Amino acid sequence: MKIDVHFEPAKPLPDLTGSLVVVIDVLRATSSMVEALVNGAQGVYPAPSTEEAIKLASSLGREDTILCGEARGLKIEGFDLGNSPSEFSAERVAGKRLVMSTTNGTRAFFLVEDAVSVWACSFMNLSAVASAAMEADSIIVVCAGMEGLFSLDDAVCAGALVQRIRTAADVDIELNDAAMGAVEMALTFRVNAHFLASTCSGRHLIEIGLREDLDICAEIDRHSVVPAMDDRVIQLRSEDAGSSGPDR
Amino acid sequence: MKIDVHFEPAKPLPDLTGSLVVVIDVLRATSSMVEALVNGAQGVYPAPSTEEAIKLASSLGREDTILCGEARGLKIEGFDLGNSPSEFSAERVAGKRLVMSTTNGTRAFFLVEDAVSVWACSFMNLSAVASAAMEADSIIVVCAGMEGLFSLDDAVCAGALVQRIRTAADVDIELNDAAMGAVEMALTFRVNAHFLASTCSGRHLIEIGLREDLDICAEIDRHSVVPAMDDRVIQLRSEDAGSSGPDR
Repeated sequence: MKIDVHFEPAKPLPDLTGSLVVVIDVLRATSSMVEALVNGAQGVYPAPSTEEAIKLASSLGREDTILCGEARGLKIEGFDLGNSPSEFSAERVAGKRLVMSTTNGTRAFFLVEDAVSVWACSFMNLSAVASAAMEADSIIVVCAGMEGLFSLDDAVCAGALVQRIRTAADVDIELNDAAMGAVEMALTFRVNAHFLASTCSGRHLIEIGLREDLDICAEIDRHSVVPAMDDRVIQLRSEDAGSSGPDR
Repeated sequence: MKIDVHFEPAKPLPDLTGSLVVVIDVLRATSSMVEALVNGAQGVYPAPSTEEAIKLASSLGREDTILCGEARGLKIEGFDLGNSPSEFSAERVAGKRLVMSTTNGTRAFFLVEDAVSVWACSFMNLSAVASAAMEADSIIVVCAGMEGLFSLDDAVCAGALVQRIRTAADVDIELNDAAMGAVEMALTFRVNAHFLASTCSGRHLIEIGLREDLDICAEIDRHSVVPAMDDRVIQLRSEDAGSSGPDR
């Protein structure tokens, strides 16, 4: 088994053929996707820009479609929701299609859209992803990062994922340099809202008044689901649909 | 004081104006530069490619100029030296100009050539760089990486540099996410030839028969000099010229 971590989602990415790709954007795209899908959203449609999101929402039909996402962390003008996991309650999203545009997370999904299997991971569904990923021979973990740069929150989540897989697997696992470094970071940093507040993304969220997002994004294993992308739509894997982990 | 680490030298780099830039390529460009300059080389002229290196050597005059560097780790055909620090003995390099072309390290110097101060750092001159860098208000550490990707050896060296500066400085230091992660990696991994052998670059050197390079590149503070680039030539800072740290 082989696990490669990429801290920054710059092109060119390696050949993704035959690998399971796991995208991580702790603050906040993949955390919000998990919350939305557990709360009954039909599917999340990532969009590479605000303009593309508006077009896509029009083509899907506005009545059952919610436009959500952020620019500089804040809800985009005219959109229905921003990018805080707490906004994606069952009351708001059950049965809806979510078209989502965010600065880093949704773009990362576009970089890897050619891969056969693309999953969304955050601290909120860490063990579920680790457990399901055990079947893969080759895993490529792509951190969404922050405008092309390294994000500590994503790196630590990647390391925690690798470490969970390593601990549970009884095979040798070949790691790339970034995966080795990520594991050590995951073993060092204690994940909680205070840790997230120390990162660049976390500090920015606090500055714009969204400190409470850090609490929910730091909730390890809040849900036990695996969102997977198929034909540009992210949905719960059929094994997970209907199960939301801890009862909420 | 502010220290930013960049694990991958992809363009665009941030605005370098007013910052001290420190380039790290542990395996092996900055390690070799340190060894060569301590052993009396007049200066190291980084070249972005084999072809440019040959042109530059011609224009400098071949009699006092040595062509050195590697492609895929190995000495380039027709070049005088490869990229192993042990090749840069006083017998070979004293009084000579070295034109150097390597896959990652010398290219990183070109990405940052517009900065006012650019220094070369490796484990071999770590404390000297840390000590001299204390005067800077803003430091940008650029890891050469490995063909655009994260290198654990460079990241750990960057973290060790930041940690030395933090320990000695009595001011608050603002770190970016990569600097925070690098410090934790530096506190975790014990630097020796065995550690370097576990990294991707180290494994490659072993495969091509250059295992002994790891011993010298892991020698923390073998020399106490700071190579600095001025007008595309890397030389010892005047404070250091003539001093080679521990007597050898």
